Amino acid sequence: MDVFRQRLQETAEAIEALLDRALPRPDTAAAPRLAAAMRHAALGGGKRLRPFLVREAARLFDGDDAQALHVGAALECLHCYSLVHDDLPAMDDDDLRRGRPTVHRAFDEATAILAGDALQTMAFQLLTDERALPDAALRARLVSELARASGEAGMVGGQMLDLEAETAETHDPEQVVTIQRLKTGALFRFAMRAGALLGRAGAEDMARMDALADAIGLAFQITDDILDVEATAEELGKTPGKDAAAGKATFVDLLGLEGARRRARELLEEALAALSPHGEKADALRAAMHFIVTRRY
Amino acid sequence: MDVFRQRLQETAEAIEALLDRALPRPDTAAAPRLAAAMRHAALGGGKRLRPFLVREAARLFDGDDAQALHVGAALECLHCYSLVHDDLPAMDDDDLRRGRPTVHRAFDEATAILAGDALQTMAFQLLTDERALPDAALRARLVSELARASGEAGMVGGQMLDLEAETAETHDPEQVVTIQRLKTGALFRFAMRAGALLGRAGAEDMARMDALADAIGLAFQITDDILDVEATAEELGKTPGKDAAAGKATFVDLLGLEGARRRARELLEEALAALSPHGEKADALRAAMHFIVTRRY
Repeated sequence: MDVFRQRLQETAEAIEALLDRALPRPDTAAAPRLAAAMRHAALGGGKRLRPFLVREAARLFDGDDAQALHVGAALECLHCYSLVHDDLPAMDDDDLRRGRPTVHRAFDEATAILAGDALQTMAFQLLTDERALPDAALRARLVSELARASGEAGMVGGQMLDLEAETAETHDPEQVVTIQRLKTGALFRFAMRAGALLGRAGAEDMARMDALADAIGLAFQITDDILDVEATAEELGKTPGKDAAAGKATFVDLLGLEGARRRARELLEEALAALSPHGEKADALRAAMHFIVTRRY
Repeated sequence: MDVFRQRLQETAEAIEALLDRALPRPDTAAAPRLAAAMRHAALGGGKRLRPFLVREAARLFDGDDAQALHVGAALECLHCYSLVHDDLPAMDDDDLRRGRPTVHRAFDEATAILAGDALQTMAFQLLTDERALPDAALRARLVSELARASGEAGMVGGQMLDLEAETAETHDPEQVVTIQRLKTGALFRFAMRAGALLGRAGAEDMARMDALADAIGLAFQITDDILDVEATAEELGKTPGKDAAAGKATFVDLLGLEGARRRARELLEEALAALSPHGEKADALRAAMHFIVTRRY
């Protein structure tokens, strides 16, 4: 197993354990059904790619690994809330997520809305846990950064534009860039910035982390769009061509298949250049970027 | 106009202006439709009772008034998000709010879910605005307190229990106490605690503010339940008996009409006792408590 897969798996196990301890338990919770729905949404699956990025960004700047995992768990709560709400009938109307029924299918719609709401709240609660993050200024900074990344000018704004694009009569292919930057890019940026902040990175390093996060997030989306066109359903584990069928513009529409492949390779080079000052500490991130650009699923 | 109504009106105007400046504008927002829905939800109405409580609690301890208004605006974003989600078809399915169409009626369901999500995020973003609240430890503390008050063990948990109570076959009248404490009580508590924190209140004062918030919140709910039984629709501006018809247990069920009236008067006495150390600074809160217990709408 290469260093990327090994670290990703280690991180996933650590995040699962952290979330299991942090999430309310149905037998002691104020609202047992809500607690059960939150656990259904946040436990038992997920690549935990965002916590991996927080942790590896912290490693670049010798940030505290336990703190990085804690921030990663908060970020994962935020990400899981967004999945619960995106899956709702009024949004993408999905029945399955990670091979299990979505929260509104396993419970009901009202419970899913509230479980998503409470998972968002929990992300901010975890970021202000003073035992896990003793520096108050850092706690406040992380909350501010996560709020900016996930609100109207970030993730939620991107989801709104994505929904509007589905029903639009005409397509602006450039819009796919804006949607990716907001809907998925903003949290990737938060992940890299948060890790760097834990290592007290300076302004120049923070700018480099932004660029690196953008390269990673964009490469991820571009290869997703390429796979959506060319992979078989068996390789992908889902129906290929689904995004195109839903009327969503993709990076393949914007750049063509060859152009998209070329852009992904350029982003790999950009990411490797951004990581060059960090020597061995960046090995897992380099391996992650190679994986993202060459993956078949 | 008495001191309560005057201060409430002043606060409402100040909060409206603050939110108008803080909320994204459709002409410059990343997601214009989302920004419009957020403004529909948060502007143009509401008593702004929670910001009034933050401000008056800060006054008791000579806390900064501008900071209290800022925290009040954040709390109002949180409150408005909860109203948007509570009104959704999967929840209370309401068409009107403050005499205007609810967000999912004026826009659509997906937009309402996202506008609620983004308003929650904005509450935490406002609490970490370092220009408005220069003390980082205070910012982190306020986020932590608001998250606890509004998550699974607070407001959202209370809404879950409230929904479950509607469909339950049997009623536990004691449950009405738990639901009130979580669904509305937790944010009243946050309001009083936040104001006191701005004035650097000590542990003993904080405990007194908790008791005061509980008296205010409980008196508010009890008189609501009394009015639901005895007021006419004309006085109330809504259909009386609606909660009983929805199968919800009320404090009148639990205590009887006379018992409920007696409990409200006791709570008034408790609140006045908790305010006694504060002399004139507490005049608006005393007037508020008298209003809550004697109101006819």
